[in-house]
Amino acid sequence: MTTVEELKLRIRELENELIKSKQKQSDAEHHLRPKIDQMSAEVVDSNPYSRLMALKRMGIVQDYERIRSYAVAVVGVGGVGSVTAEMLTRCGIGKLLLFDYDKVELANMNRLFFQPHQAGLSKVEAAEHTLRSINPDVPFESHNYNITTMDNFTHFMNRISHGGLEEGKPVDLVLSCVDNFEARMAINTACNELGQVWMESGVSENAVSGHIQLIIPGETACFACAPPLVVAANIDEKTLKRDGVCAASLPTTMGVVAGLLVQNVLKFLLGFGTVSYYLGYNAMQDFFPSMAMKANPQCDDRHCRRQQDEYKKKEVERPKQEVVQEEEEVVHEDNEWGIELVSEVSEAELQDASGPVPDLPEGITVAYTIPEKDGASGETVEETDQSLEELMAQMRKM
Amino acid sequence: MTTVEELKLRIRELENELIKSKQKQSDAEHHLRPKIDQMSAEVVDSNPYSRLMALKRMGIVQDYERIRSYAVAVVGVGGVGSVTAEMLTRCGIGKLLLFDYDKVELANMNRLFFQPHQAGLSKVEAAEHTLRSINPDVPFESHNYNITTMDNFTHFMNRISHGGLEEGKPVDLVLSCVDNFEARMAINTACNELGQVWMESGVSENAVSGHIQLIIPGETACFACAPPLVVAANIDEKTLKRDGVCAASLPTTMGVVAGLLVQNVLKFLLGFGTVSYYLGYNAMQDFFPSMAMKANPQCDDRHCRRQQDEYKKKEVERPKQEVVQEEEEVVHEDNEWGIELVSEVSEAELQDASGPVPDLPEGITVAYTIPEKDGASGETVEETDQSLEELMAQMRKM
Repeated sequence: MTTVEELKLRIRELENELIKSKQKQSDAEHHLRPKIDQMSAEVVDSNPYSRLMALKRMGIVQDYERIRSYAVAVVGVGGVGSVTAEMLTRCGIGKLLLFDYDKVELANMNRLFFQPHQAGLSKVEAAEHTLRSINPDVPFESHNYNITTMDNFTHFMNRISHGGLEEGKPVDLVLSCVDNFEARMAINTACNELGQVWMESGVSENAVSGHIQLIIPGETACFACAPPLVVAANIDEKTLKRDGVCAASLPTTMGVVAGLLVQNVLKFLLGFGTVSYYLGYNAMQDFFPSMAMKANPQCDDRHCRRQQDEYKKKEVERPKQEVVQEEEEVVHEDNEWGIELVSEVSEAELQDASGPVPDLPEGITVAYTIPEKDGASGETVEETDQSLEELMAQMRKM
Repeated sequence: MTTVEELKLRIRELENELIKSKQKQSDAEHHLRPKIDQMSAEVVDSNPYSRLMALKRMGIVQDYERIRSYAVAVVGVGGVGSVTAEMLTRCGIGKLLLFDYDKVELANMNRLFFQPHQAGLSKVEAAEHTLRSINPDVPFESHNYNITTMDNFTHFMNRISHGGLEEGKPVDLVLSCVDNFEARMAINTACNELGQVWMESGVSENAVSGHIQLIIPGETACFACAPPLVVAANIDEKTLKRDGVCAASLPTTMGVVAGLLVQNVLKFLLGFGTVSYYLGYNAMQDFFPSMAMKANPQCDDRHCRRQQDEYKKKEVERPKQEVVQEEEEVVHEDNEWGIELVSEVSEAELQDASGPVPDLPEGITVAYTIPEKDGASGETVEETDQSLEELMAQMRKM
């Protein structure tokens, strides 16, 4: 026979147990470390920034704390973009803006970052959740949309130009980690119009080559100045492209490309080492071609041509200040390693290309030609029904 | 007035809520996807192996499923080792053995993989938990100990030689992702005695250079054959070493080194591309020197010398079979990229080195000399009070 007192006791027990269970769940879900006001170089196990601040004592970086003053936009939070965002988050970047319209799938599990329990979530939502728990000091701004549609493109341009560390100011760098031609062209168009420095990254469909590229509007070749370059994978190209097959990918290649990209970002923002204009990665031969490309005065994008004019003016007016000289030196430093780069692009290939093709180092080839535009100026988002793959296939048939 | 019936109803409600709460908690903690018996190439969002199996259709890998037949030991689950283990797990490796004695600290959060809520856990425990939820198809074997103590070293040797995919068989590859001289020497000693192929990896204390190296006992130089090599960071070396400072580290450099290491593992195990013997990464200049080193007939390690004798015998006896030839070709393929490698080691440096120093490509330097041993043969674990840093400092003073 159960008494009322016994029942009430059981209710109290259950209530307490439920509170504990929910608390445990909440801890597991949030498990945030406290925020840290100021980066410290103190060498204690509890300091998440000690090994980064040590870069100062090692003579690599003059002022590591400056990382907190920069806002970076990562467009595409897939195999390369998610790792890129994680690296920047762990480095303590000032602000991260994430753009992606895709959802996490189990088919993404062969690359780093996302976990099976996140399948079905939007990539930006899942990424922001993980990144916040990794480093609660970093403010995030996530946009779950496709930047290539007209409305979203306008919003994207607005966030790039106003979503900096201080609202209203532009971001410091845009990173393209997308996997298709249209999205790259949209980023290119936006950055040309805004004069926004950006870096592009890419991994080949056969998973064994990739590249990063720095684009300074008006100074270096933009995505419309010349056919985009890819690192030759040195495999039989006939076996590479077949209809209806999904692209291969590897966590290794994507991890290397993300690492090279964020390393270039750190060098660019914090002013150490030589910033690479173009760095390729051929995994089959462990070959890393590098090169630089000037902007093309005949570029189809009028904003690119305008940026070129402004760059030329600035170059003429630029006083020979010490600080500026030093920065120039870092960025323009030549490859001193005796790596001889020889063009392997034939004359026929040069003529076939609709855009101008630069002298290419061995191992780098043209991914595809810039599609002919029907009189449109460069400021609108590139409209094309052709996918990157189709364009590449076309190029190969020439 | 509360009735017994009302109280009983409340108890049932609370019990249900508690079950749900615990279930949710359990899901969040385990969130395992179901195991997959056979790797499929089916292109559906729910297939975690579709993008890896696509490597076959792309003509890169002949038989990707073979990855499930290999067991790999990762020694050191820190900045490089944890990412290495994650990449192999996501690739669906047959079995992973993890060795580390360290605990996760907030000071590790500037590198990929571990998260703040894991602080205080042993690295192998935390890693295995995360990796299991990423890919429940991979069996793990974790050892939370320091391999350099005598008892642990014996156990380590035993697991390397008996902990393969089939218990009693050796593992297929050992990966050194440790951060100190003693542990590297212990792995070298074990692998020489067992004739076990292994790969070494390392990142410099200033965080801006790293390397990977393939060691085939008897064929290529072991860790005792020649002073270990590092990639020069091209910074003022005086600022590099100071007493009482912690080493710097970057998620970028560690991610790149882990990516290059696992890429080399995949090429080695699955037979594609050119396996690198030595590949360096200089982040300051984005320079990637590569080279190969033959085993030293005067190596201090008698097991290395024994392996060299056995290798020579096998080379003489080896029938000129087609299959063997093909494998040879892949492994030994020369660098065809016109990268000229010039030695920059001076005669004085060569003489100062206690071990034989090979002709080194530009940008690669000797990390430190092999400490003189007091008559001990190479089969015991290297005993030294000197840390890697002290040895490097000594070397520089010469």
